[in-house]
Amino acid sequence: MSAIDFKLIKTDSSSAARLGSLTTPHGKIDTPIFMPVGTHATVKAMTPEELTEVGAQIILANTYHLYMRPGHELVARMGGLHEFMHWQGPILTDSGGFQVFSLGELRKITEEGVKFQSHLDGSYHFISPETSMEIQAALGGDIIMCFDECPPYPADYAYIAKSMEMTSRWALRCKNVKKRADQALFGIVQGGMFSDLRERSALALQEIGFDGYALGGVSVGEEKELMHEVMGFSAPFLPVDKPRYVMGIGAPEDLIEGINAGFDMFDCVMPTRNARNGMVFTSFGRLNIKGARYAEDRLPIDPECGCYVCKNYSRAYLRHLFKSGEILASRLNTWHNLHYYLSLMAGARQAIAEDRFADFRRDFYAKRETM
Amino acid sequence: MSAIDFKLIKTDSSSAARLGSLTTPHGKIDTPIFMPVGTHATVKAMTPEELTEVGAQIILANTYHLYMRPGHELVARMGGLHEFMHWQGPILTDSGGFQVFSLGELRKITEEGVKFQSHLDGSYHFISPETSMEIQAALGGDIIMCFDECPPYPADYAYIAKSMEMTSRWALRCKNVKKRADQALFGIVQGGMFSDLRERSALALQEIGFDGYALGGVSVGEEKELMHEVMGFSAPFLPVDKPRYVMGIGAPEDLIEGINAGFDMFDCVMPTRNARNGMVFTSFGRLNIKGARYAEDRLPIDPECGCYVCKNYSRAYLRHLFKSGEILASRLNTWHNLHYYLSLMAGARQAIAEDRFADFRRDFYAKRETM
Repeated sequence: MSAIDFKLIKTDSSSAARLGSLTTPHGKIDTPIFMPVGTHATVKAMTPEELTEVGAQIILANTYHLYMRPGHELVARMGGLHEFMHWQGPILTDSGGFQVFSLGELRKITEEGVKFQSHLDGSYHFISPETSMEIQAALGGDIIMCFDECPPYPADYAYIAKSMEMTSRWALRCKNVKKRADQALFGIVQGGMFSDLRERSALALQEIGFDGYALGGVSVGEEKELMHEVMGFSAPFLPVDKPRYVMGIGAPEDLIEGINAGFDMFDCVMPTRNARNGMVFTSFGRLNIKGARYAEDRLPIDPECGCYVCKNYSRAYLRHLFKSGEILASRLNTWHNLHYYLSLMAGARQAIAEDRFADFRRDFYAKRETM
Repeated sequence: MSAIDFKLIKTDSSSAARLGSLTTPHGKIDTPIFMPVGTHATVKAMTPEELTEVGAQIILANTYHLYMRPGHELVARMGGLHEFMHWQGPILTDSGGFQVFSLGELRKITEEGVKFQSHLDGSYHFISPETSMEIQAALGGDIIMCFDECPPYPADYAYIAKSMEMTSRWALRCKNVKKRADQALFGIVQGGMFSDLRERSALALQEIGFDGYALGGVSVGEEKELMHEVMGFSAPFLPVDKPRYVMGIGAPEDLIEGINAGFDMFDCVMPTRNARNGMVFTSFGRLNIKGARYAEDRLPIDPECGCYVCKNYSRAYLRHLFKSGEILASRLNTWHNLHYYLSLMAGARQAIAEDRFADFRRDFYAKRETM
């Protein structure tokens, strides 16, 4: 028995885009979906009620950060992540792997796991597939992720192959120690930019059997076309009847390409982080609210947007807030960006339901060229 | 014709506390009232809708800050403060005097006005009673304040007397150039800690005639008892049929004492600034949410509080947010603190209406001693 139930409702006739429904212990998710990132048990600058208002159905929390502060055992004693942070919808926790491997010289990888030094106080820690499962069980997310190695980019074929094999062995260890029946476990496909390695990874994971499958190691590097290519050739290696998740991407166009390739779930800090830096998304492209050109601009961020921010605030005011370093700047920009991302997902779902995703994708690009 | 209409509904029989109603071009205010401070045309970390939800009826904006950034003329071109910041309730703007005098060596005072250097870029500026009126007219608040000199504290009798006399001459100049019929103008009583100077100042201002009267120079220094004393002996110098405002105070007990002395309006950065530093107010005293003792505390900030924050979040979570430097920490602490201040005002109004303000005041102090 899986903790989740995925129903594939429809596949687009002119692309691999899929419309689905994913039932979790904390509610149902319409796919394709974007998951706002709530690193420290908070999606920065937003309340849970506001997340619901902008259309969020599931959020992601970062295992590494919560293990470090306030500690997974404290979160468990406080009733788990949902109760701790007052979010009653589904939560996905990552494995902590990506953050640990990002520590660079502060960490050492062996078959057993990863030793590393805290970015907060320099103390020594060890995370293995087993401890990652234990931490994620304590946090209590609805969907938890296998502990994988995220190889550096670029890396050669031999390194990526060896790393991918270890990730498969780690995935089996995760499956073996996973305990909670109310948590679904996703495997993470690695293999870098190499199609045959991605295939071998996907097959190895399917032999073990998971509740869903994710692509890891796609967000490294900056080459968008390569990223889109990897999504394109990897999706067919994954089972049709399970949710497919691309980790850590991306820009709006990356989500469109991911959906086009047949993926169902996405997460990225881009809409929230960029918001705090004054970069907002619109249907006609990106806009830097800091720009002097907006100083007396009475238009909303996006005249076609119906969100709370666009209904009530001018670019001039948002620029003023940003230049003054006001918290409300981060709040309103984040609100709008998440609304943009989640509306884009809703639009994609509607288009797939009406079998016109190819048109939707073409319009998405055409509109951006008008700015 | 005044732009505002003040009705004195009731005076408490055992104190000087007053219940009133103040009608402005942007709505009615129940007094006594606390005005959250929105320095840069935003009450830090709050939306206008949230301000309404916590019980705010009028907010204050700082003329000096808005003159500097984004500039009063820009605000006027954007439709005035109300439209610019999306707050449709009443707004009071200060005169800019307090901030300019706080610049210390960066400013030079003459009878004509004050020359000063910008705290942002070092550029030279000049504010006089006439320019202050012009700036406040452009900002478009419902209540505007006379440009006064805020003498340093402590200062000797001769200095305070001379300064107070100039403030009276400046008040006349303000009245003479004030143009907008939809703005009310308040005079500011100075005179330091000297009863006879406060009386002379109050009488001089009443001879000119204003829509309301404020006490300035009360929040300087740290001696609470002296502050309460000044409020106590100054209130009787003010007309009964006009709103009375104590500028820049204070802590909850200062508001209780101000109401007890017969004042109707208050403003202070304390609830918002302290919130951002992790200090929250409760019915039983102050609480520092950073404290290790709250790490696993499942109670809300104040178990007797019914605000959104206390209904949904534990001290443990709020401490975690604060320690993690999360924007949501500032938001939730500010939300609670403003709710606390505005509920205290609502409680005081109810008590005056029921002629039991003395009991209310006694209970306020008694409860704090139980912590």
